[in-house]
Parts: sequence; structure tokens; C-alpha cells
Amino acid sequence: MQQFEPVDQDYVARVRYGFSLQNLMTTIDARMTEVLPGEVHIELPFSPKLTQQHGYIHAGLITSIVDSACGFAAYTLMLGSSGVLTVEYKVNFLSPAKGDKFLAVGRVIKPGRTLTICNGEVSAIDGKDHKLVALMQATMTAVST
Amino acid sequence: MQQFEPVDQDYVARVRYGFSLQNLMTTIDARMTEVLPGEVHIELPFSPKLTQQHGYIHAGLITSIVDSACGFAAYTLMLGSSGVLTVEYKVNFLSPAKGDKFLAVGRVIKPGRTLTICNGEVSAIDGKDHKLVALMQATMTAVST
Amino acid sequence: MQQFEPVDQDYVARVRYGFSLQNLMTTIDARMTEVLPGEVHIELPFSPKLTQQHGYIHAGLITSIVDSACGFAAYTLMLGSSGVLTVEYKVNFLSPAKGDKFLAVGRVIKPGRTLTICNGEVSAIDGKDHKLVALMQATMTAVST
Amino acid sequence: MQQFEPVDQDYVARVRYGFSLQNLMTTIDARMTEVLPGEVHIELPFSPKLTQQHGYIHAGLITSIVDSACGFAAYTLMLGSSGVLTVEYKVNFLSPAKGDKFLAVGRVIKPGRTLTICNGEVSAIDGKDHKLVALMQATMTAVST
Repeated sequence: MQQFEPVDQDYVARVRYGFSLQNLMTTIDARMTEVLPGEVHIELPFSPKLTQQHGYIHAGLITSIVDSACGFAAYTLMLGSSGVLTVEYKVNFLSPAKGDKFLAVGRVIKPGRTLTICNGEVSAIDGKDHKLVALMQATMTAVST
Repeated sequence: MQQFEPVDQDYVARVRYGFSLQNLMTTIDARMTEVLPGEVHIELPFSPKLTQQHGYIHAGLITSIVDSACGFAAYTLMLGSSGVLTVEYKVNFLSPAKGDKFLAVGRVIKPGRTLTICNGEVSAIDGKDHKLVALMQATMTAVST
Repeated sequence: MQQFEPVDQDYVARVRYGFSLQNLMTTIDARMTEVLPGEVHIELPFSPKLTQQHGYIHAGLITSIVDSACGFAAYTLMLGSSGVLTVEYKVNFLSPAKGDKFLAVGRVIKPGRTLTICNGEVSAIDGKDHKLVALMQATMTAVST
Repeated sequence: MQQFEPVDQDYVARVRYGFSLQNLMTTIDARMTEVLPGEVHIELPFSPKLTQQHGYIHAGLITSIVDSACGFAAYTLMLGSSGVLTVEYKVNFLSPAKGDKFLAVGRVIKPGRTLTICNGEVSAIDGKDHKLVALMQATMTAVST
């Protein structure tokens, strides 16, 4: 695992504040549980309001939490004056999103002045079992605010 | 545009029923507005509960509606006895998801016995203006139910 | 289909010159057959030197010609002083790349000052038959030269 | 890193034989340097015949070697009677492919009876320097032969 050095010493507060502004995350009860240089964790509890037709969490919401995890992971390494937006991502779904809660981990692979490349994964947690349910590869961009 | 011939004559009812089982779509007030052979439209009204940090709809929810549109577009051409799941997708975000409502269109490019390849797009509708905000390329799979 | 207006009037010569510098394209006998605003065509003849294990053209070479088609399609709309690089792409393979020749078409979906989003497709041509073999969604970037 | 147990004891010979049938790999002087359960390495020496317009290896060829690495990594875990094909992949390009040689590593993330999900990466090796140039996320499929 690579080690990154944030240029903005207040990156934790800045990232947590950005997350608090994502109303969707509040609406679905997602919590940001870890903020490290180039790595962010987001947890989502299961809710029957968020399912697809087989009763599992909808792929788009699994994507939402790992998109936010990757975006804020990129944001930990950006300048304090910048914002972050998603350019694009690709997600593979490996198993149905079945569990009590879901842990999304976003990690920076290559930071850049403009574009930052990230990997993300989502695990379903069912009691003691952890199962990988989704894999993301994403491009984030710094924007002037 | 290709013409497809559904093998299941009841595909509209089957697709609309599948959509009605996606609790997430009900939770976010999304409606399925069009069901054609190999093509499905889904509309999402803007809601401040679904935003990211700049007040636009979260990329993951834009993804959710176009994932459902592509998945059900694939499902229109599948056997009546099958289910549909998302294998993977890739989404590019072209403009901020800013508007009164959002129209996701999913279209089958190549149907298959197991895998079906789809394209999807999401437009933001702001009064009379339509603006392309996202582009998807997706792989769906038929599953036994 | 969208209409684009190149900012550089010499875009055809610039694009054809850029293509002529891609030694790989010469090595595999690929030809640029069409250069339009936001759209480029590249043709590849079948060669047994370029195959994968079943005797069809290797997926990576199908990718190579549609990557070049998309990159140069983006380049038609860029400033005369810029260069173009591939940020990322995603490709679905729909059928085996079996045919006498292969036609890659790259089209700009959304041009941008820095990032340009493109769609590409590759058809296999076998006598009179045309068959879609690959579908690309790509992000290109302008670079200073 | 996960540990995988091949079902076919002759997987090394089978994978190396499959690679030897990929004429493209011979044409570009690529060598398969490592075959492990769920992991394959392929090396490509620099050649001026394989470049894009700036003199670096063409993105499509970087893709070719990591596609083969991922495909054969998936193939190590498949039945002896099966073949392997690429369903789709997504590649991010992190740095120009500049170096004396290029090492592609493909790794299985989740094997499956039909679909196998892989990650791949390509490093440029320039004397003692190793630099990550590309990142792949891919879906491979087993086919009957």
C-alpha cells in the first residue's frame, strides 16, 4: 500500500464537512467511519427502502457509497481550496448485496494535480461474514470552488 | 436504431412488475415512463434529499436510474421465466446533474442468451432545456428464478 | 447525431499527420479512411500475425484501432497547438473479431477544453456482412505540446 | 492476496500453450514470465514499431498485454476442457508508457463457473525504475471448446 502525504493539514475536517453536505448520505444513513491520507471508509446499514427487485441493496446505491468513498479519498490529497467531482467510474458486481451492513473503501492509486485515479470496493457484512460485493475503478477531478 | 422482437409477449407487464419491486425507485419517486422492446425510460424528479455536496443529484443516484433503465431494457428481451442482474457498468459524467427532473434511457445494443450489452444516458431537464449528464455502457445477465 | 465546428481549420491535416506518427498503425497496416468534425474512421485488414488463440484478431488490437479512432475524433475538435492522450476507456466485446477487415469508428459525444468523451465501435466486415464486434466509451484529454 | 486452488492440475501447460497460440504476442515479442494460480505475468520489450504519436507504446498494446495477462490468469482456474474469452474491460492510463520494457500482471479477484473478475496492472521498467502506467478491471468468460 502506498503512503500519501496530504498537502492540506486540515484534510480530515474538510473531507468530513464535504461528506456532511451530501444529503443523499444522510438520507440513506451512511456514515464516514475512517478518513486517512488517500483512503476513506463509508458504512451503509441495510434498509428495505433501498432494495432492488430481489430484496438486496440496489446496485446504484452500492455504487453511491463507493463513489463517495473514492471521491473523498481523492479529496484528502487535494488542495484545501479545491472541490472534487466524479469524472467516470466502472463497477463490477461480484455477489448480491445481501447483509446487515455494507462497507465501502475508497483508495487513491495515483493522485494528480487535476485527475486522481482510485480503486474502491464494497463488502457486505452479515454477522461475522465479510463478502466482497463490488469493485470500482474511478477517475476523480479537482475543481476550483 | 435496431428493432428487437421480445420472446415473451407479456414483457411490458413483467418489466413494470419488476420495477415496482425495486423499493429504491419508490423511495426516490422514480417512475418508469416508457417500456419498448429493448428500451426503457425512467424519470426522477429533483429532490434536495438526494444531493451531493454542491446541491446536484448524487452521481450514484444518476447511476441508479440509468442502471435500472438498462437492466429493464435488457429484461424486455429475456424469457418470461428469467430474472435480470447487473454484471458491471461504466458511467461518464458529462455535466452536473442540475435540473427539475432527470430522464434515464436504457437501450439494448446486443441481446444474448446470458449476457446483454446496453447503452444508457441520462438527461437533465430544466424547463425546456435538455442536457446530457451521464453516459453508461453496461453488461446485464439473465438469471434463473 | 450532433454537429461540431472545429476551432482549428487545419484539423484534417493535423489529425492525419498525428496518425502517421503512430508507428503501431503502420506496423499493423491500419488506414485512416475518414476524418470529419468529431468523427474518425480507421480500417484494419485481417492478418494472421495479429490473432489471439482462436485465430481471431486479438481484443487488444481491436481496442487499439478504436482507441486511435476515438482519440483522433477528439483531436479534430482540439486547438491546433494541443496534443491528445487517452485518459481511460472501457470496451465490451460483442462477437469474435472474425472477418476480412475491421472498421473502427470513433465519435465525440461531448467535447471539452480539457476532457472529451467519446463513443467508439468496431465492425467486422466479411464480404458483404457487417457485424458489430466491440463498443467503447472513452475519455480523452488535450495536452500542451 | 487470495489463494486459489486450480481444478486442473495441468493449468500451467494449458495456459502456456494457449499463450503460444496468440500470434499477436509472438509478433510483438511478448513473453509469459510467470504462471501462478490466479496470476499471470507478461513482459513486452520496447519497440519503435509499436508506438503512438509521442514515441511511447500505444495504449492499445499496453491493453493487449494486460488483457492477455488477465485472461490467462482467469484461465489458470478454469476447467481443462474450457476456453477463455474477454467479455469487457476498463483501463486507466496513469503515465506515458515510456521504458525499456513493460510488465503486465493479471490477477483473479473472483473466479466463477462462467464469469471471472480480474484486476490488472502494467508497469514501465526503465533501468531500475518501475512506474505504474495502466490499471485494468476486466470480466472474462469460460467458453466450451
